[in-house]
Amino acid sequence: MLRAMIQIEGNKPLRLGIAGLGTVGAATCKVIADNQDLLSARAGRAIEVVAVSARDKSKDRGVDLSGVDFCDDALALARHPDVDCVVELIGGDAGVARQLVEQAIANGKHVVSANKALVAKHGAALSAAADTAGVAFLFEAAVAGGIPILKTIREGLAANRFTQFAGILNGTCNFILTAMEREGRDFDDVLAEAQERGYAETPPDLDVDGWDAAHKLAIVTGLAFGVKLKMDAMHVEGIRRIAAQDMQFADEFGYRIRHLGITKQSEAGVMQAVYPAFVKQDSAFAGVQRVLNATYVEGDAIGSLFMMGPGAGGAATASSVVMDVVDLAAGRAAPSFGVASEKLKEAAFLDMTSHSGAYYLRLHVKDEDGVLADVTGLLREHSIGVERVLQDADEATQTAQIALITHLEKEVDIQAAIAALNQADYSINDVHMVRVAAI
Amino acid sequence: MLRAMIQIEGNKPLRLGIAGLGTVGAATCKVIADNQDLLSARAGRAIEVVAVSARDKSKDRGVDLSGVDFCDDALALARHPDVDCVVELIGGDAGVARQLVEQAIANGKHVVSANKALVAKHGAALSAAADTAGVAFLFEAAVAGGIPILKTIREGLAANRFTQFAGILNGTCNFILTAMEREGRDFDDVLAEAQERGYAETPPDLDVDGWDAAHKLAIVTGLAFGVKLKMDAMHVEGIRRIAAQDMQFADEFGYRIRHLGITKQSEAGVMQAVYPAFVKQDSAFAGVQRVLNATYVEGDAIGSLFMMGPGAGGAATASSVVMDVVDLAAGRAAPSFGVASEKLKEAAFLDMTSHSGAYYLRLHVKDEDGVLADVTGLLREHSIGVERVLQDADEATQTAQIALITHLEKEVDIQAAIAALNQADYSINDVHMVRVAAI
Repeated sequence: MLRAMIQIEGNKPLRLGIAGLGTVGAATCKVIADNQDLLSARAGRAIEVVAVSARDKSKDRGVDLSGVDFCDDALALARHPDVDCVVELIGGDAGVARQLVEQAIANGKHVVSANKALVAKHGAALSAAADTAGVAFLFEAAVAGGIPILKTIREGLAANRFTQFAGILNGTCNFILTAMEREGRDFDDVLAEAQERGYAETPPDLDVDGWDAAHKLAIVTGLAFGVKLKMDAMHVEGIRRIAAQDMQFADEFGYRIRHLGITKQSEAGVMQAVYPAFVKQDSAFAGVQRVLNATYVEGDAIGSLFMMGPGAGGAATASSVVMDVVDLAAGRAAPSFGVASEKLKEAAFLDMTSHSGAYYLRLHVKDEDGVLADVTGLLREHSIGVERVLQDADEATQTAQIALITHLEKEVDIQAAIAALNQADYSINDVHMVRVAAI
Repeated sequence: MLRAMIQIEGNKPLRLGIAGLGTVGAATCKVIADNQDLLSARAGRAIEVVAVSARDKSKDRGVDLSGVDFCDDALALARHPDVDCVVELIGGDAGVARQLVEQAIANGKHVVSANKALVAKHGAALSAAADTAGVAFLFEAAVAGGIPILKTIREGLAANRFTQFAGILNGTCNFILTAMEREGRDFDDVLAEAQERGYAETPPDLDVDGWDAAHKLAIVTGLAFGVKLKMDAMHVEGIRRIAAQDMQFADEFGYRIRHLGITKQSEAGVMQAVYPAFVKQDSAFAGVQRVLNATYVEGDAIGSLFMMGPGAGGAATASSVVMDVVDLAAGRAAPSFGVASEKLKEAAFLDMTSHSGAYYLRLHVKDEDGVLADVTGLLREHSIGVERVLQDADEATQTAQIALITHLEKEVDIQAAIAALNQADYSINDVHMVRVAAI
């Protein structure tokens, strides 16, 4: 079935109801007000905020909301007679946000959302509902903030069969890792600073344990490979284990450490994973500093495309929210996942046992004669070749850190070797492993 | 007036007539054949090549053209009854390419083109003609090869008021500069290699003198600022003057040299210029190696977005050609320059006398006492402050190279100072100046 293009009648204004007036909501109102002339020229019609909802009506958000209908109940926007499109900026994969999106679609209203958790968990169902209702469901702002990566994959690179995507999708993790790298500080210390600066939430789990990036990656997977989103099969690893010492060894080996979301498609299936990874110092990812995000896409025609920009912040995220709104107003809203929802396939998702690549291992061992030989011997028994080794002995404690980079090996072999190393009587702590990215 | 969305009837296939079967033309046919299933799912209809034209029918291009109507005369495509969209891959701003595009539009056919010279010189008129005829005129492949920069500016960042764009828009120049940088070789030497590898044309003037980048920059200017394209006011400088010595001094000062196209909008007007520039070694542009292209856009909502990808090559350029085709087939072709052609403004274009920034100057002087003091004294008389100086004396010739980086100064002051320095009796050659990019 051919999906009908979504058209707003004649050249009437597109009327928005914005749910949530936090940083992004207020910035969205501001962009629409500041750039009214440009937006209407680009969209071919005016864009108007006619209704909003937020917890506190009286709060000064630096935007003029006079003449805008203030609804105490966000769900009122889903049935508001003057609203063509609900902009959901509440967040969370359940509760009011989900109800609002579902009800708005059911009531024939278009929806623009910045809600990564909601889209990651219910995106396939919501896009099917939107197709059935003949409305648009767009969520550029859910992934990589201001970088229009979803539009780029869905449209800008529509000629391509995609093979791989990798991205720095969480600004908090990148801020922490790059501060550790530059200043030699420890994770906890930098996390505290990030929380003070407002770059990290309290508690920081969603960011530093990788779940925020995982939600974004699931969305990219669905879009790039035309498959139904699944969070289940995803390997998710955060950055808590990265120590100042790993930064030093990485530097000596010619690498930086970045928190990546990687999704790949092969004959065998789709593998999506989020983890801290070694990237070469001259790679584009190594140049991504502080709270920036970055994306890298591989396709059969283009080869690869790298993008870098702000992954968060009110105005940058509003840039993506308003982009979706302009597309909708211009009558060029694409299907949520690039194809009609009924064409999304059920993919076979692979777990990390299918992974292979180079690995960084750091062992804290007793500083005794023959330990390094024992370690490399044990690795050889597990068919693991060592490319480079560094050793750092501490005379006071009579212990040593052994850091090494392996050849390209299989994850199963590495895991088996790590289990064996952890049992060795010279091992003081469990082996610390970080994957080396092939990008 | 609201521009009507361009729709192909029902879900009939979109039928293409491709003019020009060189590297890009053949790659376009291949991408369409290889990714048929994906393209029709993404476009909501099939995409078919029904006619082609090229000089030599018998040449093997590695693509199956059986069943495709081969026209000896490219202009036949403009009146071909089965062609919905003409894909113009001939090139050149006059002759057959221009006639084909004009006639196709006049006959109510959509046009997708990769022709930067044609669009730079006649883009405003052609987009007006396309609007009048109710057809699409799209040319993503004309700028930065596979990087979908036009779509990104026009749609992905549609929320933004743009202030500045900078790009590495010519892969040949970037190949030459980065080879000179890495290998310490001279311009002529690397150019010869680039010609052997097929990275540079013979003669190489269009690339190394900056005109190819200038055409691309004019297109970006029109799109980003919503103004009628003009090539007249543009400052265009190539890379022939860059010497191995400049690379060394740049390195010592902490910079790389890249050939940039920069366009800015301010209250006073639009300034577009193409020139080699010093960029900081830790800037994203410094990481752009070999034939890659890169783009940097500043907007009021996003802040900035950087993109890097292949700027040339058959498959990468075909990625952009086919993107436009998919947009057209999906019914979401946007206006050529982002807004209806009648809304494009006449901009005031500024020349380089309005430029200000830091400058690198290299002087070849007699190695005599007091010359450096004379040079800095003369600069001071022209209100020019010096931030850093390096000197490299050659005992054999009793001459010296003085290299310096100025503070932020006005172009008019710099030009006056250079004229005075060129007159000084200690100057052996004219002063060599390279601007320092603020990005």
